[in-house]
Parts: sequence; C-alpha cells; structure tokens
Amino acid sequence: MIEIVAIGDELLAGHGVNSNATVISAALFDAGFCVSQHHVFSDQEKALHDALKVALERASCIITTGGLGPTCDDHTRKVIAKLFGDRLEKRPELVEKLKSYFGEHATLEDQATVPTQARLLDNPAGTASGLVMDNGKQLLIAMPGVPKEMVPMLHNHVIPYLKKELKGEKKEKERLFFCHITESEVDPIIRQLQKKYPQVAFGIYPAHGTLAVHMTGNHHEAKRELLEKFGSYAYDAPNGDIDEAVHQLMVDKELTLSVAESCTGGALAATITRHPGSSKYFLGGVVAYSNALKKNLLQVKNVDQWGAVSKETVTEMVLGILEQTGSDWALAVSGIAGPDGGTDDKPVGTVWYALCHRGRDPSIWQKHLRGTREVIITHSVNLLLSELYLKVKYG
Amino acid sequence: MIEIVAIGDELLAGHGVNSNATVISAALFDAGFCVSQHHVFSDQEKALHDALKVALERASCIITTGGLGPTCDDHTRKVIAKLFGDRLEKRPELVEKLKSYFGEHATLEDQATVPTQARLLDNPAGTASGLVMDNGKQLLIAMPGVPKEMVPMLHNHVIPYLKKELKGEKKEKERLFFCHITESEVDPIIRQLQKKYPQVAFGIYPAHGTLAVHMTGNHHEAKRELLEKFGSYAYDAPNGDIDEAVHQLMVDKELTLSVAESCTGGALAATITRHPGSSKYFLGGVVAYSNALKKNLLQVKNVDQWGAVSKETVTEMVLGILEQTGSDWALAVSGIAGPDGGTDDKPVGTVWYALCHRGRDPSIWQKHLRGTREVIITHSVNLLLSELYLKVKYG
Repeated sequence: MIEIVAIGDELLAGHGVNSNATVISAALFDAGFCVSQHHVFSDQEKALHDALKVALERASCIITTGGLGPTCDDHTRKVIAKLFGDRLEKRPELVEKLKSYFGEHATLEDQATVPTQARLLDNPAGTASGLVMDNGKQLLIAMPGVPKEMVPMLHNHVIPYLKKELKGEKKEKERLFFCHITESEVDPIIRQLQKKYPQVAFGIYPAHGTLAVHMTGNHHEAKRELLEKFGSYAYDAPNGDIDEAVHQLMVDKELTLSVAESCTGGALAATITRHPGSSKYFLGGVVAYSNALKKNLLQVKNVDQWGAVSKETVTEMVLGILEQTGSDWALAVSGIAGPDGGTDDKPVGTVWYALCHRGRDPSIWQKHLRGTREVIITHSVNLLLSELYLKVKYG
Repeated sequence: MIEIVAIGDELLAGHGVNSNATVISAALFDAGFCVSQHHVFSDQEKALHDALKVALERASCIITTGGLGPTCDDHTRKVIAKLFGDRLEKRPELVEKLKSYFGEHATLEDQATVPTQARLLDNPAGTASGLVMDNGKQLLIAMPGVPKEMVPMLHNHVIPYLKKELKGEKKEKERLFFCHITESEVDPIIRQLQKKYPQVAFGIYPAHGTLAVHMTGNHHEAKRELLEKFGSYAYDAPNGDIDEAVHQLMVDKELTLSVAESCTGGALAATITRHPGSSKYFLGGVVAYSNALKKNLLQVKNVDQWGAVSKETVTEMVLGILEQTGSDWALAVSGIAGPDGGTDDKPVGTVWYALCHRGRDPSIWQKHLRGTREVIITHSVNLLLSELYLKVKYG
C-alpha cells in the first residue's frame, strides 16, 4: 500500500491546502494503485525523521513532496539518507548539469548533494531532482513540492517506475464521470450492480452537479451495464471536471462561447479560462452584478420590474451577451448565492439558468440549490457547463 | 501535540482536497496551538481503527472530520467507541431533538447512536453531532466533514474546549500578513530579528503576491519592530487573504468597484464576489477575452494597433469600465498567462495592470511574473487587490 506525504510546516500552520496529495492520488488510481493514507509532516529534522520512520515500516511505498529546496528548512535529503542507513554525497555531474541549466548559484551545490544510493529523477523545471530510494524492502520516492515541477515528474518518471516495481499491487480500476444525473438516480443502480458483481468495489462521489463512479476489481461487465444505463451523461476528463470536457469539445468543434453572469460573479468565466488555449473559443463575458450593468451592457431593459432573479432577466441576459459577442453559444445565470438576500418567494439557492445556441430559442430553467455560497456558485457553474456539454455533443 | 485526521476513501482516490485540515490548522494556530501532523485515513472499519489507534498513542489530541453520516460507509462512531473501550448507545433525547429539527427519517436513529462516554457537540446545520471522547489520557474530537457543519462547530465548541482542556499546550502565536512587499525584502529583516529574539520561531510564507509571517513564542518586541519597518504594508484578514481585507475596507468606506479583465479571465471578479455582501460595493465587470469585446464593451478602439497586452490597452480598459459602471474605483488587467502565446518581446508572464480612482489619473504598471497559468492568474489578482487596498487605505 502506498502512502503520500507532504512535507512542510506551512501546511500544518494552515497556510495552503495539500493539493499535491490529490493530484498524486488521482494519477495512482488511474494507474491501478491504492493509496492507503495521506500525511503532512513537519519539515523539522527530528519530527520528519520520526514520522517517516513509522510510515516506512508500514507502507510498501512512500511518496513525498516538498522539502527538497536549498533553504535551511529543507532537511528531507539528510533525513532520507539516515533512514536508509546511507550518507550524502555531492554528485559532480549533477552540479555541472544544474549549472548549465541555471547558471552559477551558491545553492546549486546543496541541490546536487544527495544520498549515495539515490536514483535521480530529472526535473527540467527546477533545481531539485527527484530521488528514489529502493533497498528491495522499502521504497521511498521524493519529489519537489512545486506543482509545476512535481506533476511532470510524477507522470514521466514515478508512475512508470511504480508500474514496473510494484506490479503485484496493481489492480483493475476505473473512474467514470457523469453530469446532469444525481447520486439518488445512480445509487439504486450501483446497489444492483454491487449484488450482481460482488468482486467489484464501487464508490459514488458527487461533486456539486457532477459525479464520479469508482470501480476497483474486475469491473468490465459492470462498467458496460452502467454505461448502457447512463452512457449519454458520461464525459471524459483527465481530472474529472466537466469544464475539461467542455474545453476539449469546444476546441474540437471549433465553436465560440460567451457568458453573462450575475450570482456566479465571474466564477463561470474563470472556470473556463483556467484552461490553456481557452481563448480559441471563449470570447468573454459580462459579470453583471448590479442591475445597472444588466441594463447597460446586456440590454435587460426591464430588470427592475422583473427582478434580477427571474426567467425574463436571465433570458434577456443570454440574448444580450450573444448580441454583444456574436458567439455560437452563450450561457447566463442569475440567482441568490446567499447567505443573505433570500426572501420567502425566492429563498437562498434559487437560481435561473439560460443556454442559447445562436439563432435558436434559448433553454431556460430554474433550480433550488442547497449549501454555502461557495457550493451554490460551484454547483451553478457545473450545471451550466454540463448542459452545454450535452447540448453541443448530442444536440 | 494535536493531529488532524480527515476520514474518507474519496480523498485517498484523489477526489477533492482536504481543505478541512487547512481551516482547522489556521484556527488552532490563531488559538495558540501547534498541529504536529495531518492525515487522511480510509473509512473502512479495520483500516480506520488501526490508523487511529497509532495516532492516539502518539498525539495529545486527535481531531477528526468526516465519517459521521448515516450511510454504511460511516464507521467512525463504532471505531471510536472500540478505541476507548466503550460501546454505542441510542440516546432518546437526541432522537427527539433530531426529529424536531429534521422530521421523521429512518437514519435519525443511527445518527443518535453514539459512544456512551461521548460528550456531544451541537450541529444546528446537520444531523451528525460532534463527539468528544476524553478519558484523561487520550482526547479525540470527531466533527462532520461538511464544511458548513464543521466550521461553526470548530469555532463555537472545539476551540473553546481545547483552550480549557489543553491550556498547557497553548503558546503565544501571531500571524501577520503583508502585501506589496516580497520575501526577499522581508527575509533579511527576519534573519536580524531571529538573532535578536532567539526565543521566537519565525516562518515566512509567500502566497503569490502577498506573504504571511508566523511567530511562535514571546514575540511582542519582534512584532513591534517588524511592524515599524513594514506596518504600512500590513493588512488584517481572518484567513490571510488580501481579498478579505479589500472586502472589509470597501464595505467600511462605502465605495464602489468594477473590473475589466483579460488574462485573469474572471478570476478577479470571482475572488471579489466569493465574499457574502460583495454586492454592496461590487458593481460588476467585463471579461474582455477577445479584442472584439475590448472594443465593443470597453471602447478600447485601437487595441489591434496597440496589442492586447500593452500600456495603452490596459489604460483604456480601466477608463472604459469606469465609464460603463460609474464606480468609484476600477481595476484592469491584460497579460499573457501562458503556457502558450508568449513572444520574445512579450514572454509568458508579461502583465499590465491599471487602477483608477474616478476623476484621477490612472496608475499603470507592468510585471513579469513566473509560474504556471494558475500562478500567474492568482498572482495578478492579488497584486491588483493589494494596490487597491493600499491606495484606498493610505491614498
């Protein structure tokens, strides 16, 4: 069983989230491996040593991130050497390589000082090489903590290494992603499949408007049945996010898109534009938070009469942004994200959505969502992108 | 030493990030406590039992989140009872209370079945009570995993309980937040202070355009000296985010704000509107991703001639959005977030910023940022909000 360790006092002090563990776990899942525990350990030398020692006795493989930088807080290399009964050595060929990449820096000699048994993993994006310590009984892989350096190392070196060295631990695993349908629709079917295919371990993970089904074990028949039932709501996405699927679809189909947002406040546009290359299809949007902006920029003339959260307003918003941008498709949203602003008629979570393909009638619908402001915003973004995905893909 | 445990196989499969650990750690830091480790453990009964057993032997207090729901995956209550040599009992008064809140549900009896020694923590937002198990030697506090339920329980019950029961572990702690200045400016001063005040443990944590300085120990003189030097860049924010400080300032000063974004793609508006009540001051914005939208909505007439990433364009953008919205203040940004789109003249990370107080000349500046697309976007948002904060606060 694999354990993932992030090293850093800043995480323990509540500064930043451990997103590296999530990225590594998802990649390991896709490669067929089980992760049994995640940890965050201090970067203080003794605390790190003691915590890693316990973990090494338990796990078949430890993957660490962080603590490989040149500052005096970075004790990871020293601690790893000690745990493997090894010592540090300066590798002249690594000094040369780092100098040729990064020029002369005082810290490069530190960065080229590694355990003698360590197999190095190349890091073209930074000065900290990855380290593999493998004495046949214990396996530890140390990667830098900066995602830009860690992610390529994970996919190019670590996953292939584990596939070779931990063959016996690999299982058949599959993640399927669905939009538009809810956990309560999928759950009864999964229960039936669980009875029929007891060798498969199922998991359903809803994520604010989309959901993932995880299967571990010999799942091919179960997968076929599940896709027979819900295949028209399935989407492919490396990280399981519906915006990844929309991105690929819009690029492939060479379509353009624009958005008019009220309660999502820019989150819809931001979710689209986080993808490199989104400028190929995303023309832009208006965050019409005030009613004045709904009138001025989107020509929602009667917003004061209709109310900001209404079928009429969201219809005019989607038509207004189509008119302004000339895009092939447009999305609009207006609602009450809370926690304040709800009324008896329109409680917090009341949201109107619009989707329009140029030249066609817009689709307009309403939802009553539950949860915090953040949840209502994220859920709304995912719902709009889900409907766009299904409409563009299947018409 | 306190350890924080999130319980859930979904996290181990790479589905979602463990943001609860971050929120709890920050709250404990502010209350003067040290967190020694974070963990994510499986929700499978045996795995959870074995992992918690080891942690309980090591830590003076374990705080768990998750695994308290009514589904068959939620074994936490049973495991906790076993670890404390206890058994589960149904508490009739809790059944009644849950029924009066949530009506008749088959699962409410499960949710009212808890270890006999457990002290319960009230959860007005959900059906799972928090549990405190304290046998004088070992202390375990279990909270629900849903942030909407966990966060109020943390602040209203858990922190006060720890302040009373773990008095001996409390230390003097302080977090200070700064904008506009960089780690390389602060680091030499911190090194001097470290020599002068060896009893204080310092930490500097940069966060894409802002930075936090953590101090543990008797830090009052060190804090005074640090604020003498950098006090004009300090801001107050419960979670350390500059957008929290901007939010409070705009509300307090009753000012209005609008934004015109290109490379940040909606992230600036989304960062502002994530705060409840932001509609009091935020009028809205334009995400002018295409040059056509820069012309149509922001009157950047010569954008094709100037280029999207130019001083002239970002100047017209900020004046255009002020004109459209009539706000007191406006921000604009245009740059190359990458990873594609860079040129020799304007490499990836080249970003132009504008800030304007209505009726005054706009401030315009350029930066060359490094990092991934996500980092360049986040950094840009923080830089703009930092300058707005300083200008509004100090003129």
